[in-house]
Amino acid sequence: MYLAKIYVSHKKSILDPQGEAIKSALHRLNYNDVNSITQGKYFITKLDSQSKSDADQTVRSICKDLLVNQNMETYQYELKEV
Amino acid sequence: MYLAKIYVSHKKSILDPQGEAIKSALHRLNYNDVNSITQGKYFITKLDSQSKSDADQTVRSICKDLLVNQNMETYQYELKEV
Repeated sequence: MYLAKIYVSHKKSILDPQGEAIKSALHRLNYNDVNSITQGKYFITKLDSQSKSDADQTVRSICKDLLVNQNMETYQYELKEV
Repeated sequence: MYLAKIYVSHKKSILDPQGEAIKSALHRLNYNDVNSITQGKYFITKLDSQSKSDADQTVRSICKDLLVNQNMETYQYELKEV
């Protein structure tokens, strides 16, 4: 079995209204040392793949096909055998 | 300046309907090697803190006060100077 952790965040060029909203809420709570904050998605998935390369391929495909909006988001991932 | 990456996920005891929905969608797309998947939140924040311990304290406090639902979620974070 393989375990993948997938981190999905907004592309730099894309406005992140949610991040801006969180930042102003934090400033209202007097966390003025918060310079910037962005919110993304974080997936943890277990894969019954036959090999690490199969698991790697599955991770890339499920990101492309479902988990990541390619127009607005980028992603990084970690993959290990468990 | 300090950079923190915060990973928020459901507590194990909490049902994750979103993860279940994603898993069945992936199975309908024939990704049958996906054994399980959970979705959480991923924050990247830059902090103008005076010291690493101040930054660490800010991260813990903003998680407790705003970013994490303590009843249903747990979090981990990484903190480094940039």
